[in-house]
Amino acid sequence: MRVVCLAGGVGGAKLADGLQQELAPGELTVIVNTGDDLERHSLTIWPDHDTVLYTLAGIAEPGQGWGIAGETWQVMGQLARLGEETWFRLGDKDIATHLYRTARLRGGARPTEIALDMSRALGVPSRILPMTDQSVRTRLRTDDGWLDFQDYFVRLRQTPDVREVRFEGIESASLTPECREAIRSAETIVIAPSNPIVSIGPILAVPGLLAEILAARSRGVPTVGVSGIVGGKALRGPADRMMSGLGEESSALGVARRYAAQELLDLLFIDREDDALADPIRALGPDVVVTDTIMTSNSSRARLAREMLDAAAAMRAKRDPAMDPEPRARP
Amino acid sequence: MRVVCLAGGVGGAKLADGLQQELAPGELTVIVNTGDDLERHSLTIWPDHDTVLYTLAGIAEPGQGWGIAGETWQVMGQLARLGEETWFRLGDKDIATHLYRTARLRGGARPTEIALDMSRALGVPSRILPMTDQSVRTRLRTDDGWLDFQDYFVRLRQTPDVREVRFEGIESASLTPECREAIRSAETIVIAPSNPIVSIGPILAVPGLLAEILAARSRGVPTVGVSGIVGGKALRGPADRMMSGLGEESSALGVARRYAAQELLDLLFIDREDDALADPIRALGPDVVVTDTIMTSNSSRARLAREMLDAAAAMRAKRDPAMDPEPRARP
Repeated sequence: MRVVCLAGGVGGAKLADGLQQELAPGELTVIVNTGDDLERHSLTIWPDHDTVLYTLAGIAEPGQGWGIAGETWQVMGQLARLGEETWFRLGDKDIATHLYRTARLRGGARPTEIALDMSRALGVPSRILPMTDQSVRTRLRTDDGWLDFQDYFVRLRQTPDVREVRFEGIESASLTPECREAIRSAETIVIAPSNPIVSIGPILAVPGLLAEILAARSRGVPTVGVSGIVGGKALRGPADRMMSGLGEESSALGVARRYAAQELLDLLFIDREDDALADPIRALGPDVVVTDTIMTSNSSRARLAREMLDAAAAMRAKRDPAMDPEPRARP
Repeated sequence: MRVVCLAGGVGGAKLADGLQQELAPGELTVIVNTGDDLERHSLTIWPDHDTVLYTLAGIAEPGQGWGIAGETWQVMGQLARLGEETWFRLGDKDIATHLYRTARLRGGARPTEIALDMSRALGVPSRILPMTDQSVRTRLRTDDGWLDFQDYFVRLRQTPDVREVRFEGIESASLTPECREAIRSAETIVIAPSNPIVSIGPILAVPGLLAEILAARSRGVPTVGVSGIVGGKALRGPADRMMSGLGEESSALGVARRYAAQELLDLLFIDREDDALADPIRALGPDVVVTDTIMTSNSSRARLAREMLDAAAAMRAKRDPAMDPEPRARP
């Protein structure tokens, strides 16, 4: 079953890992947000891509949700001695990723080619595609003025209230042939429990990308999402505070409203804790599955992914009986 | 006493360290070769500068003559996993140097400013100046064709015979204000026992630099060198093979011929082993001191530096009795 998953960083990486566990090699394509990308110490850094890459390669640091397991910090220590600001922490092995990528970019390679080569080199059985090959930078208007995303996210620890979000460069970004082809050949589209504003938001804003997903939906391809906000709180990161700051409801219902406004979803998975939101969400359009959505282990990642894949298969089967995943024996 | 030392990598760094030990803080300026500089893994690397920097900062790896003491190799290991060629070995702390520099260069800073800031950050009491702020690249014609310097030096371990040497970009390189000022205010000029062809050669080829040294000489500033070839063999690196390959004599006399052709030297220090070459060298112009020139310890670096400084002081005193370093008591 060919699956496309739209993902940001940690939560997206966990669900992508669950999907990869449940699918055959080559069946999963992850389209990752590039709006958080940045330049530091002369390096081009792709935080969301790399979190997904390290997770799918089985080398992610399990505790913190970013970086490589067993990292050392010699480069950062020496950069600090040279007087550099080191609030954006980069482990030594992680720096190799950025050096490799930066050298390839300087050599003229497309980000998509580089991403595919990195996945291949690290033995990842899935495809991880940047949402676009052009530079897009998420900028946030806060009470402290306009900030770069990582300035807000890492340096200021997400303390300023966010009043407005812009994806700089998005108008001139274009859908890559690889993303287009992945969506066109997908049998299921999954929206990871990533931040709907600054992780999934930029992906959907790439000109032509949402239209491809809507075209897939109209061909009967199920689009299945999962809320990263549980009990009104983001499982990780500032999605809840951002939604409140922007005047939206910080809840699975708020997430559903965002996606429903784009007619994106067939089905939203929400946590048991949010059971009461199921009917209000259904009233917006998408159907709802209530389950355990918090991925605390490798097996819980796989279980949630399996439930989402099964729900999508069931939906396809209902639309087209020939696609029934478990055809009943004829009488 | 204000001293300018022209230096390449390891041998130059050792003598510069001896000079720094013997001089007051701020009295030493080292002008380093930049012809060996290269780009690897998106980084701009200055091998000779960095060897001098680490040595003068007291953090050099004592055994190998390059890199920082106690290095780790996490970045290289991961770059290899990504499929990169890693024949040019870069330690983790060393990579911080290159990241800092590359970021500053991309930000538009001059190499000289960057070098001065790095020395300051690492607490070096001397000034280390790139020979020029423009890009110069040493290229070698060998029986295998034209090679970049580090390709020949590191990757091919100096095995091909060198038939011709070019410093690409040297015509458009210009003397920096800092180098000019250092030479103009120098009281002694020292030529380190570095490779005369590819370490000292590029420095002297920077348009205007040799002329400044000759002007200093004509003002009575002593120029004192030391041969890095002892008993016909280079103490380190391929200077002996290069000289032979180019049809020159691989000996202290060959070194003297090179420098005498440019009327560079007042005095050449040679090793006791080369005692027999003293008269033939004197016949070329420079005076000769025969001593122990091999720097095997910190104290032998200081001792050789002291001898060179004393010889220069004596020479200045002879030319101008007012400058006599130990004025005799009047009777």
